[in-house]
Amino acid sequence: MANSGESFRVTPWEVEGAVNYERLVKEFGTELITEELMKRLEKAAGGSNHMLRRRVFFSHRDLGHVLDDHESGKGFYLYTGRGPSGPMHVGHIIPFYFTKWLQERFDANVYIQMTDDEKFLEESRGLTLEDTAYWSLDNMVNIAAVGFDPDKTFIFRNTEFMARMYRPVLKVARKINFSWVRAVFGFNEQTNIGMVFFPAIQIVPTMFEKRRCLIPAAIDQDPYWRIQRDIAESLGFYKAAAIHSRFLMPLTGPTGKMSASQPEAAVFLTDDDKTVRKKIWQAFSGGQPTVELHRKLGGNPDVDVAFQWLYYFFEEDDRRVEQLREEYVSGRLLTGELKEILIEKVQMFLTRFREAREKAKDRLRLFTHEGRLASRMWESWPEDT
Amino acid sequence: MANSGESFRVTPWEVEGAVNYERLVKEFGTELITEELMKRLEKAAGGSNHMLRRRVFFSHRDLGHVLDDHESGKGFYLYTGRGPSGPMHVGHIIPFYFTKWLQERFDANVYIQMTDDEKFLEESRGLTLEDTAYWSLDNMVNIAAVGFDPDKTFIFRNTEFMARMYRPVLKVARKINFSWVRAVFGFNEQTNIGMVFFPAIQIVPTMFEKRRCLIPAAIDQDPYWRIQRDIAESLGFYKAAAIHSRFLMPLTGPTGKMSASQPEAAVFLTDDDKTVRKKIWQAFSGGQPTVELHRKLGGNPDVDVAFQWLYYFFEEDDRRVEQLREEYVSGRLLTGELKEILIEKVQMFLTRFREAREKAKDRLRLFTHEGRLASRMWESWPEDT
Repeated sequence: MANSGESFRVTPWEVEGAVNYERLVKEFGTELITEELMKRLEKAAGGSNHMLRRRVFFSHRDLGHVLDDHESGKGFYLYTGRGPSGPMHVGHIIPFYFTKWLQERFDANVYIQMTDDEKFLEESRGLTLEDTAYWSLDNMVNIAAVGFDPDKTFIFRNTEFMARMYRPVLKVARKINFSWVRAVFGFNEQTNIGMVFFPAIQIVPTMFEKRRCLIPAAIDQDPYWRIQRDIAESLGFYKAAAIHSRFLMPLTGPTGKMSASQPEAAVFLTDDDKTVRKKIWQAFSGGQPTVELHRKLGGNPDVDVAFQWLYYFFEEDDRRVEQLREEYVSGRLLTGELKEILIEKVQMFLTRFREAREKAKDRLRLFTHEGRLASRMWESWPEDT
Repeated sequence: MANSGESFRVTPWEVEGAVNYERLVKEFGTELITEELMKRLEKAAGGSNHMLRRRVFFSHRDLGHVLDDHESGKGFYLYTGRGPSGPMHVGHIIPFYFTKWLQERFDANVYIQMTDDEKFLEESRGLTLEDTAYWSLDNMVNIAAVGFDPDKTFIFRNTEFMARMYRPVLKVARKINFSWVRAVFGFNEQTNIGMVFFPAIQIVPTMFEKRRCLIPAAIDQDPYWRIQRDIAESLGFYKAAAIHSRFLMPLTGPTGKMSASQPEAAVFLTDDDKTVRKKIWQAFSGGQPTVELHRKLGGNPDVDVAFQWLYYFFEEDDRRVEQLREEYVSGRLLTGELKEILIEKVQMFLTRFREAREKAKDRLRLFTHEGRLASRMWESWPEDT
């Protein structure tokens, strides 16, 4: 939990205020991705990714060791997750595209944890187990639609895979006391005992293989890895490595993160073209109140949702995105024009996504049970119990 | 947790000092079994049990409601358990004979939870999951040897049945906060998060059926049922009923309870005739230091292990046990003679037990997976998830 004076607050459950990512890195004790490290990753990957170049993924732990393990032939694996508390918006799905890029480039196994247990345990959400089961299925189809390798990807719901995970979870839980989770997650005496226990469950997939685990995830999940890194070696596993993303700016502007409970702040994967147009048209902008003023003073891309979304993910071409920035700053490009550019990109993305989603429905069981990695996990993991 | 001045202390993990059972009933808020209630139970059971007549099972919660449910035709079920942390001694197995008696008399389902998870989580025991797996199997064979109905009895290990239990466990866990388990179990900031979570797991079997659950168990387990009774109805289940036993007096005399970590204090189910003889011969007695003094002053059966063991379980005949008491008090019966009577009883019990144990090995799977109740639990419980 980072609580930096009055300005912002980042925990696995909430993001408040305008996040100062550089300060977050200092407080969490992670490291910024240097130019040198990025080049090394690109070289190993045999290619580049715009989310990396633009430092959407901006911070890390032990990424250098991951590349050492890749270069030595030992390899590594990827782990990420999703809390299935409701419908997914574009901010939820984008990091999975980065994870897929890593899988393709490194031919790595990917494990994706659906934390349906934790979403039920968060009392303030008021979800039943039927709700979280519904959203798990819905969200898993979305994730499958991203295009992971069905023989190298295992998507699992905690309430189901607990059948295999419980013994390893106990080993982790025995290493963590209440005092520690209270300090790291801000738990208190009123926290329910399921929430208190849950960190052990999120940590276990970092011990699915006897290789280093690289976790692509938003920076707010880092507190779990901090605990993991203090106990992993005593259990015979590697300290988890992580690569952390910033949050996609909410449609409402540059504070907080998008939340499914605030529909006007996000574009959902199910939003139709008309809804997308309407939402983006109403989004917060860094433009001036009148065309005359805008032509004269120019817009501010740093707080402009349309520019930030194009930069974060939707415009892959670096030259094009810098051109847009320049034109916006100079006032040549109007807010409405910039929004039109984003609307078209998002509409196209969602059209393709929904086609992929339809096809993914029939393929979901490969990821959850029948693909090579999934069936191995159900049949023979963990080896020692 | 009862902590009564300096005199004694009873928690699910330790019993210290000479337990004052009447005070414990007041502190725990349970009720003594009145003569009237006992008669009512005997009438419903169509028979009597010496452990009940002698108030080895001496306290209860809602036993009257259990009998109401029996009389109305609704019925009830039984739930008890065992922490598989090591070899079992006679004090561990005796309550199962009482549970079996209840099953026979009321044709009731019995659920027996092996808390292998909790025994691993108790750090001070230093057990691995391999250890608790070993002792689970060993202990389950002992329990099966007691002679439960294989079609109406389900014996399950938590680490295995968690596959089916996890969702109900989450529902219970969401109802309990850290503050509560700290107060009830004496947990603190250093308690590991697995131990903090565990009460939810011991509570769930009280919700295996939509009927009242009667729990025959030693009084030290009552704190779990206190929590259960505060949350059960909000989850759509009955408050658990309980019938509580005293502890069998350790061979070392009338303080504490027998512990597997103190081999000289207990007779184990695996002890051979010679070991049984030696241990009982060395047991604490209420006799006088010389035969002459004993003949003159008599013995004190209240602190005499041999008498207490005969009274607690090994001599079923009430007239015989009162005759022994009288002869011992008067000094006609010597300590050595009383011990010889117990030695013979225990040796005979263990000989028969070990024969039953050999036969139980092949039948264990009926209780754990293949019998009518066990297979129903694996296949279709819980119904709603």
